[in-house]
Amino acid sequence: MRLDAEQLTVFLTSISIMLLMARLLGELFIKLKQPAIIGEILAGIILGPTVLGVLMPGFSAWLFPKTPEIQVAMDGIFSLAVIMLLLVSGLEVDLAVVVRQSKTAFLTSFMGIIFPFALGFALAYMYPNYFGINDEKMRLIFSLFMGTAMSISALPVIARTLMDLNLIRTEIGLIILAAAMFGDLAGWIIFSLILSMMGAGGGTLGFSDKILLILGFTLFMLLIGRKIVNKIFPYIQKYFVHPGGVLNFIFILGFLCAAFTEFIGVHAIFGAFIVGITIGDTAHLREKTREIIHQFVTNIFAPLFFVSIGLRVNLLTNFDPLLVLIVVFIAFTGKVIGCGLGAYWGNMSRRDSLVIGFGMNSRGAMEIILGLLALQFGLIQDKVFVALVIMAVFTSLISAPVMNYFLKGRMDFSLRDILDRQMFIISSAPDKDSVIREMVSLAAKKYNIDEETLFQQVKSREELIPTGIANYLAVPHAKAKVSRPVAVVAFHKEGLDFEASDKLPAKVILLLLTPQDKSELQLKLLAEIANKFKDKDSVESLINTDKPESIISALKNA
Amino acid sequence: MRLDAEQLTVFLTSISIMLLMARLLGELFIKLKQPAIIGEILAGIILGPTVLGVLMPGFSAWLFPKTPEIQVAMDGIFSLAVIMLLLVSGLEVDLAVVVRQSKTAFLTSFMGIIFPFALGFALAYMYPNYFGINDEKMRLIFSLFMGTAMSISALPVIARTLMDLNLIRTEIGLIILAAAMFGDLAGWIIFSLILSMMGAGGGTLGFSDKILLILGFTLFMLLIGRKIVNKIFPYIQKYFVHPGGVLNFIFILGFLCAAFTEFIGVHAIFGAFIVGITIGDTAHLREKTREIIHQFVTNIFAPLFFVSIGLRVNLLTNFDPLLVLIVVFIAFTGKVIGCGLGAYWGNMSRRDSLVIGFGMNSRGAMEIILGLLALQFGLIQDKVFVALVIMAVFTSLISAPVMNYFLKGRMDFSLRDILDRQMFIISSAPDKDSVIREMVSLAAKKYNIDEETLFQQVKSREELIPTGIANYLAVPHAKAKVSRPVAVVAFHKEGLDFEASDKLPAKVILLLLTPQDKSELQLKLLAEIANKFKDKDSVESLINTDKPESIISALKNA
Repeated sequence: MRLDAEQLTVFLTSISIMLLMARLLGELFIKLKQPAIIGEILAGIILGPTVLGVLMPGFSAWLFPKTPEIQVAMDGIFSLAVIMLLLVSGLEVDLAVVVRQSKTAFLTSFMGIIFPFALGFALAYMYPNYFGINDEKMRLIFSLFMGTAMSISALPVIARTLMDLNLIRTEIGLIILAAAMFGDLAGWIIFSLILSMMGAGGGTLGFSDKILLILGFTLFMLLIGRKIVNKIFPYIQKYFVHPGGVLNFIFILGFLCAAFTEFIGVHAIFGAFIVGITIGDTAHLREKTREIIHQFVTNIFAPLFFVSIGLRVNLLTNFDPLLVLIVVFIAFTGKVIGCGLGAYWGNMSRRDSLVIGFGMNSRGAMEIILGLLALQFGLIQDKVFVALVIMAVFTSLISAPVMNYFLKGRMDFSLRDILDRQMFIISSAPDKDSVIREMVSLAAKKYNIDEETLFQQVKSREELIPTGIANYLAVPHAKAKVSRPVAVVAFHKEGLDFEASDKLPAKVILLLLTPQDKSELQLKLLAEIANKFKDKDSVESLINTDKPESIISALKNA
Repeated sequence: MRLDAEQLTVFLTSISIMLLMARLLGELFIKLKQPAIIGEILAGIILGPTVLGVLMPGFSAWLFPKTPEIQVAMDGIFSLAVIMLLLVSGLEVDLAVVVRQSKTAFLTSFMGIIFPFALGFALAYMYPNYFGINDEKMRLIFSLFMGTAMSISALPVIARTLMDLNLIRTEIGLIILAAAMFGDLAGWIIFSLILSMMGAGGGTLGFSDKILLILGFTLFMLLIGRKIVNKIFPYIQKYFVHPGGVLNFIFILGFLCAAFTEFIGVHAIFGAFIVGITIGDTAHLREKTREIIHQFVTNIFAPLFFVSIGLRVNLLTNFDPLLVLIVVFIAFTGKVIGCGLGAYWGNMSRRDSLVIGFGMNSRGAMEIILGLLALQFGLIQDKVFVALVIMAVFTSLISAPVMNYFLKGRMDFSLRDILDRQMFIISSAPDKDSVIREMVSLAAKKYNIDEETLFQQVKSREELIPTGIANYLAVPHAKAKVSRPVAVVAFHKEGLDFEASDKLPAKVILLLLTPQDKSELQLKLLAEIANKFKDKDSVESLINTDKPESIISALKNA
């Protein structure tokens, strides 16, 4: 069975229009200092039955026809897209940080499931009639479902939001990601339990087999798989065409493990995410390969997936304002309070706990997939489904702006929040100006700042008083158009003269950019950095390293 | 309609196994100094009904089930894959060279259609019974079909073979590509004429409308579209996130134009190819963006498409040895002699004409798609279909090794055969050794040579007698493990001392690598280069350029 010429025409046209709208709205939101994903989800709502379907029903029916062939072909693309997205998100995870934060992540995740689950369960169990459940036998199952629906979160949306906000490799970002991963796992396991209680659960696997398999798979990949990958990566890079061999290896393993977790009954994206973590941690994965995958997936495939969320359903038909309000309220308070409390008990500050709570709040496409399955099995009515979808879209839309708001006000950044292994260069620049230029250029690209202005700012600060401190450290700095502090670290083997008091050349050069209105923050961070370089012996062992890449982790963990 | 969990599992598993087999066999053929595409097509034959289907029918049926959902989802992926591949191939085309060679390309293409068409038509018309055509009314239509089937060629296979052989930006490569493009266009127009004669032609467009539209589209894109792209590209790179904005723009335009040509009734790949040419020519497309697209598409998507060829049909059932022999013989002689004669009349040498003839001979998936359509419409019998498929696979497999064979023996390379705009760098290296290192590193990566050995070879030659010539030119050179001559050109604004007789610093530095057993070839090329730099005035106007990128074209055209 193949797509015929007419179907292929429509298929290609709708993909290009989806990409176009996603890009335009995504860029608009970037200009508004919001993450692109909000624009991409809105693009889907506009192209979908909610707006285009009402305004131009003829064009909408042509562009997104109900033809099964086109729908299945699209679904295949969307599935690959979300799997690739989770693979890329996994590549960004620094497992060491997750492990160090595992207590906080676990508490966050646990509370973030229990609390909204209890609220959702209680509500449904007390007022089954309101949701249209009149069959007493269905009451328990439906209540369990509502609990799950309130507590599930959307790893793809969360991961993408963190990437858009440049938070994915920070401490907060990794706690959110780890918690979302635990949560996702628990959510899908609970949901497959509900399905099997309804007699609808697919597959031949028993429930305990499922849990054993998925835990076994996860532990195997993260403990042993990582070591294997670390061993065979150099061989692939040596004996296969580069970067083709490595690219293929990543996708082959990603798709295969995605197939495996889908087979077990946990969603395919989970396997892809674990593979991403397994591979992303190896020091052998070169920046260029990472960049090729990252750019292609986040710019071509991820937007298609986020647009597809809005295409699935009309948000205005079967709209029950009260029900929507209740569902949104419970989902919101349950998740934000649950996760927030968990994070707070895990020793995060009050403000960071709030950021984590809102970060975990996105429901995205997972909620919609869950709702669709429940709708197909006759467990929920249309109006409940629509309420769940609106809740999913709303929580996904609101998450980033709220996080941004709290992060902007956040004054207690410490060095390990802002160190980022992607903002690290090994320099062999001939002089001070050149190394500053290299670092400024990296920061300017990443944070969309004008390179020339920034360079002049850093240079004039440097001319005022040179920023060489002591013990091989220099800290050029400036206030810049950034919403939170940014650090770029350069390692220079021979060292460059930054006129330090002890006359030693600077081998570790840290460029610090802070928001324009936060003078105290700049002072605090400068003091923290200087403090880290107090002990000459430990500094010398740090800079005499064979693996400059590990300087960042050493600084973070110090 | 969606893929259910079981279907998604199978879908993902088969994609990863296809990628795995393609990579393993592809690498094997690279080791054998053959292009990867041969391995990829063989991977498909092995995974398909011909081998795996016979050896392990159960596993084969599980991995590639006849479920319509999975087949359609796969077809969607394969369609995107081949469209992306043609987009990438288009990006590599240097339109100026095509235009300069348009007479040769047109003659090659014209003869390459007429000659095999006449043979195929005559055979079918004289012996209709042999092909199972007993209805006198069908005789003409069937003969027209056989003519077309003999004359069509496969742009995707040809383009990929040229990329694999590193020929795509050479003169021969571009003549083949341009001729294949003309040929493809003519082939699909003739085929849609046949379909409409049978009353099977889809769409509401009249035949003359089709031709008008496709010619109009092609001319518009290549004449006006190119200028528009050139104008708006800097804006996209400035105002949109980079490289995301540009990546999206390329794919949006590519998919949209693919949809348009598919709608007209010419295959979708044609539109994508034209978009590739339109965009690839702009000087504003950065190397990094090109690299991201190139690596992702040729390593992830293109292999899926080439594997899919072998999946479509069992080559051994309905195998009629005599029929296969006749079809292969006619296709071969028709195409190779036709194109070869055309190229020869277009002033190519005898050997180059043969290379072009074999380069044009690949039928690939186009033939199989043509055959499938004809089979569906009842125009041909199974045994004819199988003969066409075997011919398609065989011509695709044999094309690269034969081209390689003739190219290896080829002694009459001239400078413009070996200049390549991807092998050009703008250097600001501080000294002679550094610039040589930069050039060697580029060549070593591209042609899989050991960088250190090569560097030492070039350096020791340089120490023997410095290679500065005169008029700002230096030509460091060495014999290396390459199958054909390779040039890297570096432009250095300030110039570096290569001890030239006129004491002028070298601003154009050309690194020349020649095969180890071809001393005369090295001498001939060195003489040709020195000759190009005889006239001091024209050299000065060349090196005082604002656009160093155009040095390569200037040298080629001089």
